[in-house]
Amino acid sequence: MKPSIPKGTRDFLPEEVFRRNFIFETIRDVYLIYGFLPIETPAMENLQTLTGKYGDEGDNLLFKVLNNGDFLKNTPEETWQNRKSAEFIPFIAKRGLRYDLTVPFARFVVMHQNDLSFPFKRYQIQPVWRADRPQKGRYQEFWQCDADVIGSDSLLYEAEIIQMLYEVYHKLGIKVIIRINNRKILQGIAEICGIGERFMDMTIAIDKLDKTGRDGVSKELLERGISEEICNRILELVQSSDIEILKKNLVNSQSGSQGIQELETIMSYLEDHPAKNWVELDITLARGLNYYTGSIFEVVLDTTAYPEYSMGSLSGGGRYDDLTGVFGMQGVSGVGISFGADRIYDVMLHLSLFPDSVSQGPKLLFLSMDQLSHTYAFRIVTRLRSSKIHCDIYPEPAKIQKQMKYAHAIRVPFVAIIGEKEVSSQSITIKNMADGSQETVHENELIQYFNHI
Amino acid sequence: MKPSIPKGTRDFLPEEVFRRNFIFETIRDVYLIYGFLPIETPAMENLQTLTGKYGDEGDNLLFKVLNNGDFLKNTPEETWQNRKSAEFIPFIAKRGLRYDLTVPFARFVVMHQNDLSFPFKRYQIQPVWRADRPQKGRYQEFWQCDADVIGSDSLLYEAEIIQMLYEVYHKLGIKVIIRINNRKILQGIAEICGIGERFMDMTIAIDKLDKTGRDGVSKELLERGISEEICNRILELVQSSDIEILKKNLVNSQSGSQGIQELETIMSYLEDHPAKNWVELDITLARGLNYYTGSIFEVVLDTTAYPEYSMGSLSGGGRYDDLTGVFGMQGVSGVGISFGADRIYDVMLHLSLFPDSVSQGPKLLFLSMDQLSHTYAFRIVTRLRSSKIHCDIYPEPAKIQKQMKYAHAIRVPFVAIIGEKEVSSQSITIKNMADGSQETVHENELIQYFNHI
Repeated sequence: MKPSIPKGTRDFLPEEVFRRNFIFETIRDVYLIYGFLPIETPAMENLQTLTGKYGDEGDNLLFKVLNNGDFLKNTPEETWQNRKSAEFIPFIAKRGLRYDLTVPFARFVVMHQNDLSFPFKRYQIQPVWRADRPQKGRYQEFWQCDADVIGSDSLLYEAEIIQMLYEVYHKLGIKVIIRINNRKILQGIAEICGIGERFMDMTIAIDKLDKTGRDGVSKELLERGISEEICNRILELVQSSDIEILKKNLVNSQSGSQGIQELETIMSYLEDHPAKNWVELDITLARGLNYYTGSIFEVVLDTTAYPEYSMGSLSGGGRYDDLTGVFGMQGVSGVGISFGADRIYDVMLHLSLFPDSVSQGPKLLFLSMDQLSHTYAFRIVTRLRSSKIHCDIYPEPAKIQKQMKYAHAIRVPFVAIIGEKEVSSQSITIKNMADGSQETVHENELIQYFNHI
Repeated sequence: MKPSIPKGTRDFLPEEVFRRNFIFETIRDVYLIYGFLPIETPAMENLQTLTGKYGDEGDNLLFKVLNNGDFLKNTPEETWQNRKSAEFIPFIAKRGLRYDLTVPFARFVVMHQNDLSFPFKRYQIQPVWRADRPQKGRYQEFWQCDADVIGSDSLLYEAEIIQMLYEVYHKLGIKVIIRINNRKILQGIAEICGIGERFMDMTIAIDKLDKTGRDGVSKELLERGISEEICNRILELVQSSDIEILKKNLVNSQSGSQGIQELETIMSYLEDHPAKNWVELDITLARGLNYYTGSIFEVVLDTTAYPEYSMGSLSGGGRYDDLTGVFGMQGVSGVGISFGADRIYDVMLHLSLFPDSVSQGPKLLFLSMDQLSHTYAFRIVTRLRSSKIHCDIYPEPAKIQKQMKYAHAIRVPFVAIIGEKEVSSQSITIKNMADGSQETVHENELIQYFNHI
């Protein structure tokens, strides 16, 4: 039997885990500094919690977990007769793997509302599962890194999210643009064009401006029965990113004016923060998702910094007004952001942005010529380890060539070869594997030596 | 709809996540110091990888994931006719959730053998899933923290495992006994009692000595056709923990003598390490699992330190000689250990061993009397955060009572109330929420102040 793993899933080798943790820890540290607290939810949720929350397509992409024991015993005769897969599901699977972190968070807030204080700021870094067709950069198991504030409509939190986006990408060394928009501005544009009630049609069409261009959007709007004149007016409005002009144009729309004012308040919170220089108003930004009701965020690579490399959005989020309503808790406003760790990983690898220090493997490997040296070396290793120095020892005396081959293979930066001479002088010769240089250090000075490199 | 989660699964609130991470990070730090490297494997494995590895009971406890799309389409007519759940499984579920970290690790080693250097030291801290009946302290989703070395039979690694067990429990502040045994000693005892070929029967019986006592073990051995005389001899031998006496008794068994010699080698590695004082030879230790072939470890609470509290084993492990054989890679020896994070959590909570510093929530919360103070406070918050100080601000000016209520609820240790006076003097009065004491600090000295408390 040749072992394999399910398509769309991945094993992570040590170097990959170190790099991924570097990303997770950078995000987590920023979340903590901003007062967000961690929660965790189980991988399996009741299907009742998940079903119907992601549209029909989402329901199909949910991984369903077979009930245990005699799972067919509750299947009614009619279902047996019809032999339809979809009809069997409610009788044979009551659990599913979480599809994102947002629905489990909403469920969590409603279930634990009496133990939480609002506004509740939570972050959550956990894997999610989707039965998407696997392809380059798309996996069936992947990690999301979400932060949300729930229970307040203060625009301060929009400002904090923008600051956190800046802090994370700044620390990772990735130059990005933080696109921002507000659904109320889009609503306002629809209103002043006289198609307020066609707001969703308009949003769906302009969301594709990036991909299909002006012509594609025009075509789609025309197909939806919106006249060419209105169409041109919409395109003109959404392609302007001058807030003063927009403000003037939207003066007769209450919704539009409110959207503009919200933007201005958010920007005023950012006055003292470098994040403001990374923010770009982008009226074409709609992010498809129906549940955003105010601010919308999206982070993309700064193409002027990386003209020859392209990648989809790295983060996205926004404000929603009724996330928990479906679980019976009405009228709670929230705002959140999500980092796509897998895409960030790919970008950092491509741009060689991971510092060497992400690896936490052993710094020093001891090799020994004979049993006496081995015993001596292990004593030194034990001492170094008690001072928290990451080090290791080849497990027995063996031919030095064989041991050196191992040292090269595990890419340890320093090696100490222990023989009779070292044991009697209590001095260790340390070889730098990168440049071949050597240095002799007394055993009592080793800890200090390794604390300084 | 009242939301719920599947029985046997848990949500973790922020305080619980902080405490659990304290345990995970303590274990991880020790693993890294000892040169173990992290790997991660996917939650879902092919059922082919998992099935048949944990006995029939284990197979029943595997969570199986329903295939996506029209999952019934490959079911043969005969299976439709029989309507047996077990017969359907191979046609409707090709994936399952991992049941432990050991089998995925074996699969990983075989799949990636060309990318790994042996001995390969890996650790893995991830959740596993079992459809066990939920009960106190037993969950359907729980975390394992494993470390294994594969590709060497050096007893140095047994010594390292014992040192790591000591380091982790010492850092957590839990007083434990590290029980150690060797399957070769058990084999030797069976041989000198003349029942070498009944070794498994003997092992199964004496493994229960803790629970059923001498009489229970005698009864079980008698039922298995072992004479009372032999039975008494076995009990006498396994209840002795004097290595010199055992050595003499086992002198005529090659296996037994080898087991003793292995123990002595391991103890000689520990000479310079405090772990040696926590080790106890326990010949009754068998750990049920068939795949151990040499050393066996188990960690239990030191009952002399906690006479009124009892808990099952907190860690367990041992040496196995053919973990990867089932996946086609023969003759590879390994040794490993696993920490039961959930039990450790319960012990630490019961004994109040979590330090206050595990919480990484905000240290300071700003409250503001009016809009001007709010704007000023947010500017200070922004500065503190840029110095990595975990802090937060109430999202808008509001009645101070309301804001203080929130401060109490989130249990923030310090509060700063900002009003006109603070804005004009640029001095912040910081209130210690534990004792009510107050201190006034100039805004320029705040960072230093919070870096020192």
